[in-house]
Amino acid sequence: MSTAGQVIRCKAAVAWEAGKPLSIEEVEVAPPQKQEVRIKILFTSLCHTDVYYWECKGYTPLFPRILGHEASGIVESVGEGVTDLQPGDHVLPIFTGECKKCRHCLSEETNNMCDLLRINCDRGVMLADGKTRFSINGKPIYHFVGTSTFSQYTVVHEGQVAKINPTAPLDKVCPISCGICTGFGATVNVAKPRKGQTVAIFGLGAVGLAAAEGARVCGASRIIAVDLNPRRFEEAKKFGITEFVNPKDYNKPVQEVIVEMTGGGVDRSVECTGSVQAMISAFECVHDGWGVCVLVGVPKIDDAFKTHPLNLLSERTLKGAFYGNYKPVSDIPNFVNKYMNKVMSFGICLDNSLPTIHHSVF
Amino acid sequence: MSTAGQVIRCKAAVAWEAGKPLSIEEVEVAPPQKQEVRIKILFTSLCHTDVYYWECKGYTPLFPRILGHEASGIVESVGEGVTDLQPGDHVLPIFTGECKKCRHCLSEETNNMCDLLRINCDRGVMLADGKTRFSINGKPIYHFVGTSTFSQYTVVHEGQVAKINPTAPLDKVCPISCGICTGFGATVNVAKPRKGQTVAIFGLGAVGLAAAEGARVCGASRIIAVDLNPRRFEEAKKFGITEFVNPKDYNKPVQEVIVEMTGGGVDRSVECTGSVQAMISAFECVHDGWGVCVLVGVPKIDDAFKTHPLNLLSERTLKGAFYGNYKPVSDIPNFVNKYMNKVMSFGICLDNSLPTIHHSVF
Repeated sequence: MSTAGQVIRCKAAVAWEAGKPLSIEEVEVAPPQKQEVRIKILFTSLCHTDVYYWECKGYTPLFPRILGHEASGIVESVGEGVTDLQPGDHVLPIFTGECKKCRHCLSEETNNMCDLLRINCDRGVMLADGKTRFSINGKPIYHFVGTSTFSQYTVVHEGQVAKINPTAPLDKVCPISCGICTGFGATVNVAKPRKGQTVAIFGLGAVGLAAAEGARVCGASRIIAVDLNPRRFEEAKKFGITEFVNPKDYNKPVQEVIVEMTGGGVDRSVECTGSVQAMISAFECVHDGWGVCVLVGVPKIDDAFKTHPLNLLSERTLKGAFYGNYKPVSDIPNFVNKYMNKVMSFGICLDNSLPTIHHSVF
Repeated sequence: MSTAGQVIRCKAAVAWEAGKPLSIEEVEVAPPQKQEVRIKILFTSLCHTDVYYWECKGYTPLFPRILGHEASGIVESVGEGVTDLQPGDHVLPIFTGECKKCRHCLSEETNNMCDLLRINCDRGVMLADGKTRFSINGKPIYHFVGTSTFSQYTVVHEGQVAKINPTAPLDKVCPISCGICTGFGATVNVAKPRKGQTVAIFGLGAVGLAAAEGARVCGASRIIAVDLNPRRFEEAKKFGITEFVNPKDYNKPVQEVIVEMTGGGVDRSVECTGSVQAMISAFECVHDGWGVCVLVGVPKIDDAFKTHPLNLLSERTLKGAFYGNYKPVSDIPNFVNKYMNKVMSFGICLDNSLPTIHHSVF
């Protein structure tokens, strides 16, 4: 029996206050409005960005709220004007979107900072009417980055929905919607190491592991991981890491250690921690003349990146990557296909390491 | 009568102490040693970097010294092992070099930071024997960046000598050896604006004017100049500048003014002042998603470039350019030919604006 057009009652993990445990509640999920899609979420995983906005340190509080943005599911129904998606489609909701009409989406210079649907952590409502689709006994519950996947059903703008190969295992491809693309793309699309080059990866979380996998796919000869937690090193070898540096083991800045290890610096570095000190180290450890440092980690609100300008003038490049420079709607279906067809080897990230939560646990 | 192999006595402008007027002296110029070339300098111009090292604020003093590095001349004689140059060749001595053997010179990634001959402002002697080729009554006079062109004759490493078209007017092409390539190349080789894009140029000295000319050659639709001196604006129109911003006219940061003028920021910016505040403004005025800022100006020794990491994470790129990314020996002969053949229109820089000093004034 179709639930299209009706309010759905289902379970969701609701954050009532900053830093307080989420509580599983029965929520009402309104039907999708114009250009919106209602999705039955089957799998979700936890990203540090959810934690940031749950802790809400330094950010404007917006509660009660349903967090979650790394997920997979099946379209339950679509709102007015949605033509590219239909009930039954297998999809990944994505925390940032693509309107295909703005100057970013139409720019010839690759970027994914869509004017309309770019990530917005401070907005808790849908664009169509400025209201929430979630409520509990009539009380609105705010959205998070337009996805709110810690719910069995959610409503998402169609420009934030990637329609994927229906044979792809939804539990495995779930992290492609955030961490995997963010890390893998930062290396492959932005840092672009050449075959045989050296790459330093700062941070061995899911994003860093995917960035390392990107370096391996590009043919890097040395992949040097930097992390404060040595327990991550053994597992990380599966992702192509060849060497490990723990800054705690040295009494000098880690960038100096890496410059010495490599006879002048790495060819590329990718920063996946969000620590501003790691960002500075990641930049200052790349080789002069050609080194490229790509920043990925999300900094604290009052952080300042600081370096001597001569580090730039000696022909180093510093740039940031957002969602691995992938366009969410246009690029992700193909990314999933490459995983399915084993064209790329990053499957190891998805097969071995990143636990996802089936929503039946609610 | 050949002077090869003999000491030449000629006039030079000698800096005896930091900040004290140069004095025209008769100096002895020893014959070139292995891999060296002695050049009769015909024209030279004054670059701000000469002034920095003459003032010597914050740098280790190295005096007496012959400054000067933007010049043109004719080879008088060559030392042992020099095969690509011979007496009579028209040349530009260049402050940075190309050994053609080191990992920089051989790198597939374009760069010009040669390990052997990269600019070295602190060395006052020749590489071959660690001695000077200049003296006054036996007292050594130090070199500057391997060129010391404020002398009628100078000795330069062959890897710092560009052999140019002998029909090129030496008075006109003189500034190609430093300022013109530095600015023009920063735009054309590093910032690489696309046709129709907007470019901001910070600083309207010779380097900034050449950078603006580069933007015009690339087909930029708007070229916005930023300078504190409004008297430079009229002259600058010849170089393709379409709009002028004087930061003194506003009571908010100039980057905010430019972001408003352009509906989000310029596509490219090139910083040609060396002021660290201008560097920060130049970076923060480029558009998110695709903006590229190129730093060219030489900073003070204790400066710090500082910005919020989110300015990078929103997909802006920050990079430095050194000598416009040109390889001194390999690229400059062709650069001069393009000027001669009017393939590039930057001739206006050379024809109209930059005075050179004929060494007969000594």
